[in-house]
Amino acid sequence: MHNEQIKILTASLKRLLRRGAITQLVNIIKKTHMADLSIAFKELSADNREKLFALMDDPEQIGDLFSLLDETLFLEFVKTVEFNKLVNIFDHMPSDDAASLLTLLDEDLSDQILSKMQKEESDNVEQLLSYGEDTAGSLMVTDFIALEEEVSAKQVIEALQNKYLDVEMPFYIYVIDEYEKLVGVSSLRQLVVVHPEKPLKEFMAKDLVTVKPYTDREEVARLVARYDYLAVPVVDDDNKIVGIVTVDDVIDILHEAATEDMLKMAGVGEEYIETQTVFRGTRIRLPWLFASFLGGVAAFFIIGGFEENLAKFTSLAAFIPVIMGMGGNIGTQSSTIVVRGIATGVINIQDFYKVISKELAVGVILGVIYGLFIGLIARFAFASESFSLMLSVAVGLAIISSMSIAALVGSMVPLIFERLNIDPAVATGPIVTTSIDIVSVYCYFMIASRLLGL
Amino acid sequence: MHNEQIKILTASLKRLLRRGAITQLVNIIKKTHMADLSIAFKELSADNREKLFALMDDPEQIGDLFSLLDETLFLEFVKTVEFNKLVNIFDHMPSDDAASLLTLLDEDLSDQILSKMQKEESDNVEQLLSYGEDTAGSLMVTDFIALEEEVSAKQVIEALQNKYLDVEMPFYIYVIDEYEKLVGVSSLRQLVVVHPEKPLKEFMAKDLVTVKPYTDREEVARLVARYDYLAVPVVDDDNKIVGIVTVDDVIDILHEAATEDMLKMAGVGEEYIETQTVFRGTRIRLPWLFASFLGGVAAFFIIGGFEENLAKFTSLAAFIPVIMGMGGNIGTQSSTIVVRGIATGVINIQDFYKVISKELAVGVILGVIYGLFIGLIARFAFASESFSLMLSVAVGLAIISSMSIAALVGSMVPLIFERLNIDPAVATGPIVTTSIDIVSVYCYFMIASRLLGL
Repeated sequence: MHNEQIKILTASLKRLLRRGAITQLVNIIKKTHMADLSIAFKELSADNREKLFALMDDPEQIGDLFSLLDETLFLEFVKTVEFNKLVNIFDHMPSDDAASLLTLLDEDLSDQILSKMQKEESDNVEQLLSYGEDTAGSLMVTDFIALEEEVSAKQVIEALQNKYLDVEMPFYIYVIDEYEKLVGVSSLRQLVVVHPEKPLKEFMAKDLVTVKPYTDREEVARLVARYDYLAVPVVDDDNKIVGIVTVDDVIDILHEAATEDMLKMAGVGEEYIETQTVFRGTRIRLPWLFASFLGGVAAFFIIGGFEENLAKFTSLAAFIPVIMGMGGNIGTQSSTIVVRGIATGVINIQDFYKVISKELAVGVILGVIYGLFIGLIARFAFASESFSLMLSVAVGLAIISSMSIAALVGSMVPLIFERLNIDPAVATGPIVTTSIDIVSVYCYFMIASRLLGL
Repeated sequence: MHNEQIKILTASLKRLLRRGAITQLVNIIKKTHMADLSIAFKELSADNREKLFALMDDPEQIGDLFSLLDETLFLEFVKTVEFNKLVNIFDHMPSDDAASLLTLLDEDLSDQILSKMQKEESDNVEQLLSYGEDTAGSLMVTDFIALEEEVSAKQVIEALQNKYLDVEMPFYIYVIDEYEKLVGVSSLRQLVVVHPEKPLKEFMAKDLVTVKPYTDREEVARLVARYDYLAVPVVDDDNKIVGIVTVDDVIDILHEAATEDMLKMAGVGEEYIETQTVFRGTRIRLPWLFASFLGGVAAFFIIGGFEENLAKFTSLAAFIPVIMGMGGNIGTQSSTIVVRGIATGVINIQDFYKVISKELAVGVILGVIYGLFIGLIARFAFASESFSLMLSVAVGLAIISSMSIAALVGSMVPLIFERLNIDPAVATGPIVTTSIDIVSVYCYFMIASRLLGL
């Protein structure tokens, strides 16, 4: 459904809820894609949400919905479901969805659910939970098609009609040898194109890109995006296939990774916080602002140190905003370019000197241009004063140094963090802006004091 | 290939190029995935790149490579290719790739290529070029499988084995009626599962999500991501299918859209500029910094207007950085949350008042907290002075007003831009920071002048 259609759906739901038209509501639930319903749910009042959710009955559908809802809504709904029904819902979910939802619940509750689930299902889920949170293992599906090399195309199709009827992503058939090692892959398309009696080993593709269960999920996403795969197999250290990561999960990862990076750079943690309460939103943002607070306090003491000069030369104060602003903005430009460049693979650590020298060059050039502008403004604003020339030179030089240093710091910090294996996005935002603020103000007052003979 | 393997590939290429080992190089080119080779190319010197590229011969492979390269490298290579060979390369490309590459060339050259291409191919490409740049039409492939309702499963499979051998994404079979209108879809998987004699109309899915050729490509990406589709059909106003957009293109769109948003918010245009020259990088960034320059100049005049007060009260200047910094940072937080929220569909315009009142609340709370901190610092730094209390109250109030206004402006501006159909990301960055700088400084000096009786 397009967004307009979802609006219509939401409006109908509201109307029917007001009228208490149970039969129609149940009908809509049955016929609507859970992806659409999950969006409509967000638009309903808490009261209406609960009423509508209570009408849902099919455990498979509820599981689907759960995996699509925001964390807050999911937790809200879980509370209203009776325990045995909850276990039943988790039993019907694909194991990767079950695993990631269980991590959102209280440990007690999630343990209880796991212990009541069907053995095979809970084993799968526990296996997935044992991999780290951001790994291929945590998001792979353990439902895939693996057949031996000797199996013929016709036999594969028969297997698809029986054994593998429930596999989520049946477009690749993985081929294993007698030791269960992964040796090739065939697409569903090849199967229908080759002679029915041909065995897999004669038409499978042999050069496979695989990942390990502990491969970082963003690395997995990059591989799938790079080769336009629909899925990538996850193999253990013996090269046995243990699961596959499918392209729809990759889209989610790429989406989330970009959102996380943007939020981290702006200093708002990594989880999307618009859906959270004012209190939680405040709590998440408070510490990030602390870096900028410390920077401001440092700048306060720096300026305080020059107070005598400032008393003689009040006009100096008026240039503080422009010097900080230009430095801060070019620094943000540089760090955004580098952070995003690293994330998309356009920039590697090997490019260290190339990248920072280019950014420095850009910083110097732009510094000279804007330094001239602002110098001219200073010259004319104080045209009648004897210090006018020196003040304008001082301000111009301050802009040049602030913008050059900012471009350098802005590009260097994320690269250094990347080399130290610290997420460049998380640290870059506050560190870059704060340090640039301090350095800019300090340089400005040093240069001005010298040139004006204070 | 994982990144380490690509490094090894690059090192081998360099070694072989130094030794002039043509046969081995040709062999590597033949066996390497173009996605890997395109990355390796970036790591080679211009000289080596050209040598290696000259060894490529297969037009299909070159076309593949072209569609994967950065714009700069693509243009560099195009210059080295003889015209007839170039036409041949474009003839062998999927029409969506050809269309998007042609837009990168000089109009003269692209017209010449189009006029020499095979009629059918160039017609397809020109059709694609006629849709707007950011539309579904510009990125769809015109290669898809469409069969009539009466065709049986077995007949579809036969068609796959003959007529549709070259279709890029054969996982969906679209079903059309006698007037060529799209009426359903079947997956390749269903085909092998149903009885061979069953006609499509008996097992096709009838509720289809479709888009129009002029649908915005980000809307297409959202739909594919939402429903976990592998492709979405593009239909004209008569509901005739004209193409499909596949999931691999959607991944690219989502990737690009996130990068664009981040760069726009940082004020660096929307194209990735790290790969560009220092000169172009400077030119792109210059105008964006102009907003911040104007803001700085405005702040200069505001502070100039309070110069007499400042002369009496030099200490006021020392608080300028912290007041600007705290306002600027919370404003960036708010606008990032809202811009990304709009992009991911978490925030709608309908949420206008909800979102801005929540952001305002967060701004006020954080303002009070940090206002207290900074007020205390002012109180103690000037403990021995008679004006100490009033100064600390003034600074605290300035922080509260600056942070509250910043959170309000930061969340409001992107929502207003979205309502006016202006891209929220492009305008938000510079506008938000600059206006916050001006307002913060003004409020600060107003409050201080009143309270200190200046």
